[in-house]
Amino acid sequence: MRILVVGATGTIGREVAAALRQNHEVVSAGRTAAELQVDISEPASILAMFEQAGPFDALVSAAGSARFGALIELSDDDYLFSLKNKLMGQVNLVRIGQRFITPNGSFTLTSGILAKEPMPGCCAISMVNAGLEGFVRAAQLELDRGIRVNIVSPVWVKETLVAMGRDSASGMPAAQVARTYVASVTGSQRGMVMDVRELA
Amino acid sequence: MRILVVGATGTIGREVAAALRQNHEVVSAGRTAAELQVDISEPASILAMFEQAGPFDALVSAAGSARFGALIELSDDDYLFSLKNKLMGQVNLVRIGQRFITPNGSFTLTSGILAKEPMPGCCAISMVNAGLEGFVRAAQLELDRGIRVNIVSPVWVKETLVAMGRDSASGMPAAQVARTYVASVTGSQRGMVMDVRELA
Repeated sequence: MRILVVGATGTIGREVAAALRQNHEVVSAGRTAAELQVDISEPASILAMFEQAGPFDALVSAAGSARFGALIELSDDDYLFSLKNKLMGQVNLVRIGQRFITPNGSFTLTSGILAKEPMPGCCAISMVNAGLEGFVRAAQLELDRGIRVNIVSPVWVKETLVAMGRDSASGMPAAQVARTYVASVTGSQRGMVMDVRELA
Repeated sequence: MRILVVGATGTIGREVAAALRQNHEVVSAGRTAAELQVDISEPASILAMFEQAGPFDALVSAAGSARFGALIELSDDDYLFSLKNKLMGQVNLVRIGQRFITPNGSFTLTSGILAKEPMPGCCAISMVNAGLEGFVRAAQLELDRGIRVNIVSPVWVKETLVAMGRDSASGMPAAQVARTYVASVTGSQRGMVMDVRELA
């Protein structure tokens, strides 16, 4: 398969790209240092990426930012940034990408454990992650030509916890997280929220 | 209790207000024909509502619009409208209202069955409803002074189906839906998604 990995230079995206490259052609996309440049918060940038990419059989998104912050401190702009970037950015990869993907292709997006298991400081992130999962369940019902869409829900990644100077004992290595993305691309799941702990 | 019902003139809000009035003081709010006028898509309008409302012990929101439409037809504006109105409108009722609500007060928002059980044409609505549920789970962790937040997930309402000229056999009467809102206001649930079928 020819697979577009958006966010291919991030902690998770790097490992997903590496794992997929073992058996497939991977085209990397990201804000910087990737074969294709894209800012997913801008629909025009997404469209330009697909126009440059040529035909592809699968898209994996490990891209998108949302803002941490206390309920009383998050600003209107923090919510707007999170909605435009991680939420609508990934929604738009599907909305726009469905016109370009080959029949029986697949989209794999990224939510996160905070959708269902929140912690203080993650109101905007939990909202965005849960919203993405709702979108994926609904979008699957309307995708035609055999196209699939799933969303991977990662737990905290060990490399991220180490970079933050926090206890990494509970984190999952990014290479292990990547396996669930590979399962989504190569499997037959449709409209599923795939918890990385279920495959591990 | 003194209870603010936002969306008090809607199909569900009307029945919630009527049910709560049996034992409590209800102040109605809505875009029109209510004691307090509010456009929940505008944070400044929400702030003005709370400043006019005076002290209140509970807020129920049965307000907020989101756009139906096929995945290939929903526009950027349809998504933006849905995010600003039903999603951020209700999020902002909690963000702004927490500064005004009395200790041990409660917020009760509205999502909908499409969050978890989608049908074609509801990508934007499923996204918004699921996002609201994620927000409520997370916000509960940070609300202080004993304040609670829950979200009611209604099924299709019989009166709505009749108004749409559709088979109403599977719908639940709004007065029955209202019971779950009353349970949220008068009970002790915290951070819960309350499916109206579980009480019925």
